[in-house]
Amino acid sequence: MPEYVAPLNDMRFLLHDLEYLDKLVGLPPYRDISSDVVHAILEAAGSFASGVLSPLNQSGDIEGAKLGKDGVVMPRGWHKAYQDFIEGGWTSLSSSEDYGGQNLPQLVSTFVEEIWNGANLAFTLSPMLTRGAQQVIASRGSDAVRRMFLPAMVRGAWTGTMVLTEPHAGSDLAAIRTRAVRHTDGTYRLHGQKIFITYGDHDMAPNVVHLVLARVEGAPHGSKGISLFVVPKILVNQDGTLGERNDVRCVSLEHKMGIHASPTCVMAFGDNAGATGYLVGEENRGLDNMFVMMNAARFAVGLEGLGISERAYQHALAYAKERVQGTDISGDNSDRVKIIRHPDIRRMLLSMKSRIEAMRALSCSVAVAMDLAAHHPEGSTRSQNQAYVDLILPVTKGWFTENGVEIASLGIQIHGGIGFIEETGAAQYLRDARITSIYEGTTGIQALDLIGRKVARDKGQAIHALIDEMCQVGANLEREEDADLTHIGKALHASLVALGDSVQFIIDTYPTDPHRAAAGAVPFLELFGIVCGGWQLGLAALVAKRKLTESSNNSSFYVNKIQTSRFYADHFLCSAGGLAQKIIQGANAVLALDEMHF
Amino acid sequence: MPEYVAPLNDMRFLLHDLEYLDKLVGLPPYRDISSDVVHAILEAAGSFASGVLSPLNQSGDIEGAKLGKDGVVMPRGWHKAYQDFIEGGWTSLSSSEDYGGQNLPQLVSTFVEEIWNGANLAFTLSPMLTRGAQQVIASRGSDAVRRMFLPAMVRGAWTGTMVLTEPHAGSDLAAIRTRAVRHTDGTYRLHGQKIFITYGDHDMAPNVVHLVLARVEGAPHGSKGISLFVVPKILVNQDGTLGERNDVRCVSLEHKMGIHASPTCVMAFGDNAGATGYLVGEENRGLDNMFVMMNAARFAVGLEGLGISERAYQHALAYAKERVQGTDISGDNSDRVKIIRHPDIRRMLLSMKSRIEAMRALSCSVAVAMDLAAHHPEGSTRSQNQAYVDLILPVTKGWFTENGVEIASLGIQIHGGIGFIEETGAAQYLRDARITSIYEGTTGIQALDLIGRKVARDKGQAIHALIDEMCQVGANLEREEDADLTHIGKALHASLVALGDSVQFIIDTYPTDPHRAAAGAVPFLELFGIVCGGWQLGLAALVAKRKLTESSNNSSFYVNKIQTSRFYADHFLCSAGGLAQKIIQGANAVLALDEMHF
Repeated sequence: MPEYVAPLNDMRFLLHDLEYLDKLVGLPPYRDISSDVVHAILEAAGSFASGVLSPLNQSGDIEGAKLGKDGVVMPRGWHKAYQDFIEGGWTSLSSSEDYGGQNLPQLVSTFVEEIWNGANLAFTLSPMLTRGAQQVIASRGSDAVRRMFLPAMVRGAWTGTMVLTEPHAGSDLAAIRTRAVRHTDGTYRLHGQKIFITYGDHDMAPNVVHLVLARVEGAPHGSKGISLFVVPKILVNQDGTLGERNDVRCVSLEHKMGIHASPTCVMAFGDNAGATGYLVGEENRGLDNMFVMMNAARFAVGLEGLGISERAYQHALAYAKERVQGTDISGDNSDRVKIIRHPDIRRMLLSMKSRIEAMRALSCSVAVAMDLAAHHPEGSTRSQNQAYVDLILPVTKGWFTENGVEIASLGIQIHGGIGFIEETGAAQYLRDARITSIYEGTTGIQALDLIGRKVARDKGQAIHALIDEMCQVGANLEREEDADLTHIGKALHASLVALGDSVQFIIDTYPTDPHRAAAGAVPFLELFGIVCGGWQLGLAALVAKRKLTESSNNSSFYVNKIQTSRFYADHFLCSAGGLAQKIIQGANAVLALDEMHF
Repeated sequence: MPEYVAPLNDMRFLLHDLEYLDKLVGLPPYRDISSDVVHAILEAAGSFASGVLSPLNQSGDIEGAKLGKDGVVMPRGWHKAYQDFIEGGWTSLSSSEDYGGQNLPQLVSTFVEEIWNGANLAFTLSPMLTRGAQQVIASRGSDAVRRMFLPAMVRGAWTGTMVLTEPHAGSDLAAIRTRAVRHTDGTYRLHGQKIFITYGDHDMAPNVVHLVLARVEGAPHGSKGISLFVVPKILVNQDGTLGERNDVRCVSLEHKMGIHASPTCVMAFGDNAGATGYLVGEENRGLDNMFVMMNAARFAVGLEGLGISERAYQHALAYAKERVQGTDISGDNSDRVKIIRHPDIRRMLLSMKSRIEAMRALSCSVAVAMDLAAHHPEGSTRSQNQAYVDLILPVTKGWFTENGVEIASLGIQIHGGIGFIEETGAAQYLRDARITSIYEGTTGIQALDLIGRKVARDKGQAIHALIDEMCQVGANLEREEDADLTHIGKALHASLVALGDSVQFIIDTYPTDPHRAAAGAVPFLELFGIVCGGWQLGLAALVAKRKLTESSNNSSFYVNKIQTSRFYADHFLCSAGGLAQKIIQGANAVLALDEMHF
């Protein structure tokens, strides 16, 4: 089975040819960043991914995480890999220097995350959650809590979790019942059962730092009565050493379709005296505080969709270039050919490749915007970039993960019968990918966030600003004297018309008839994702064309980029009109049928 | 977990309101068929499905088929279920009376097959293959072979298999290498290894009758040198009793993503003296002869896509009506609601339901055409119906199974996080469904058959005849004084224009540039499937409207049918234009990229 290889060429194209790295030059925290440093980091990540994480992906799937007497036992080889991961400094890339972090841009850590996800999704979930938990503690925790937990978490010595879900409270966090009782020493004692806790327990690190949503006694009902707590597996002494066991344990593990090596725990808090917890931020502001982590995690899960897509593509491509089956359809020759010669195999591969490149470029634009929103000296630039990030985040989560499922499924299809056999490895990508469009907010939840908070609330201001920018790219493409580019520009233009009509429908409908708007929410998210992908590949085609005119170095890469962009236009942008019809005309049919008659 | 319930109401609607049963009245073999008999059969099948097969679906998945010392051991409960299945007469529904069969129409056995597939796909594969093997032996076998094997197979006492694939010969059967040596007694001795043999061995019946493709020594190269043999697991004595073990054995089982209870065997033929085989039909005509079974199996696999879709829908629907989560999006009320109240859940359910009803109606039209093609007294009616069957068969295989994968995936999505947990059962449907678009010819293979043999070869004659018929339905819908029906008619009309343009492109392009035509083959199959589904639901809406005008009995069913048809028009027919663009404009981009640069 081929090991995962980091797509460094495409990443370098984005950093340099699309000039995403240049956009960060001059931002105060990144003064010292050089392309040499960034390249060295990406190469080292690629090498660790191929050499250490990728080979553990299938063995971890087969062996799985297991619950033993003393807690969760990880598969063979994972402990050593995690130690190497820590020692490589991979847990602290984008963490603040204040706690030992490396203060690197989100742009760099986004590429690195994609690489980890491609190599081994089940492994990557733990550092991803640790990083999200760090962000909440760093931005909302008290000095004491930050001192107690952050240095060890930044080092990766302790891992983090996100403890939200209860059996009756999945998407609906307002329904949480876990109780928190104030203790005389200023801490709290938590009691309750939580489910679906990723890496809720494991034996790769001595401590697990849980970020737990719970209700302080006497708090208001609903979402305004929820608070956020840090609850460590092992209590931390004043001197920072580990002390007694806290009243927290993993009581069972779920049997899942995929990500078998990632322990999904049922966690009991406070079965005995109560689990000691430290309040993060103010009481009853827990959901707001947790959203820091949830937003980070949503972007990270989008990158899971991207990473697993890239891996599924590499795996299928290797097979398509090696497997000999059938003859050329022209009948000119009776020699058996490699299956990549069959047009439908090429179509499937390009359907994977073009979406992957579109997603990667889009993720890059979001990462840079996150950096600019955090660090640009101009307030207006910060807020413009934050508006873009807020708008696009549900798309990166929803569209990337839905693509990931489809792309992993295409990877199986390219393999034919052998794809269904577990040893091949292609099936695991679909089984693993299938959770990504569910956890951290299903695609439906992302789509509601998109149409409600991100489009209707500001009456389309942010999305219209983006549409204007995309129209400009379409116009630039149409002006080029190149048949492919003008064609891509026309297709982008047509898709933008469909998007604009759909935005208008959402803005007009949402305030007065939210059911009708919501009926088209997921198709709207899909349409928006497809158009954004077309915009990014359109930009890429423009740059590639310029590079081809300037010089002939690396010309095959640029020709390839234009052809990939053209494929995307002809195979994805073309669906925009139909999606707009679904959104605008399709709501009545969604709502008409009586509940009895389903 | 809810057990599967046969969708008898929709089946009765097709039989009576759409008058599919009436079309068979007067055909010589079915003179005695009455709706009472058909209803009794469907009800008995539904009851067996819910009571016996459905409860074994998950336990079979967990336990799986295992290879023991004496061959394959089936999961607990399966042996008894198979005995009950035989005793219920379920193996012989559509088999000829000459060998103890019940001579029932394909229409009836199609519904019954859908029911078995919905209840337990892994179980159903064995009787499905047995039936296909019977058909080949009945139509192509010698008298002696028929007498030796058919009665026991019709009774279900012995099961059948389809033995085609070798490691280097999957889709490309011409590459088969298994050898057959003529023996002095007129039989043959076979030597070779075969893979992916479904139910190649098991312990539910004492004998397994393999239909094996092999090459007689000295035969021509390629597909014209392949012959078909019956090779039983246990040799049959002159008196019909079982004799010695033949030189055939299962040497290993595949570890698969799904259908765990269906043993997928690596079979060794002739490791010792050679496996005794009986020629079926003439030497070197094996592929032609096997196509009898392959066509039957392709339709049957289409019904697997349909059956598993129905089950995934029922499972998700039950959850959506029971699970309370979140509040109504209007914000009018803070009460928690069942998730079926959320528009996006309704959209997903309708996306499942509308395609299921479209597929069922289409399968019914194919089944009736098969009956008419076989038994109508008029030669022209027979050949018209056969042309329809030939044209539509790749669509029922390809489109139904691709839908099945998507619908099973939507079923998981509706469950949210719990859908990813294996105990829930929803994940199994996706794991099981995933093979259906691969085995018996991948979707790509079906699509090539469609554009080449079924559309280009007769220059569109058969498909244009069908398009004319569908246009008539569109015109009838547009003439109705009902906003929903005229809307459906317009949508059908627009989709037919897109289909017509695509047909023209295929006819124009295939003879001179088959690569370009083939680049759009799968999108063409999808487009054709979607339009055929719209045609069938349009017909259903017309009938439902008439029934509503005639009387108010069962009116909610008819209202529901019109609304479902309307949903389909707004959510599936709307994609026809984009698909036509993919087919017509998208080929260049599929073919342009150099193989090196993927």
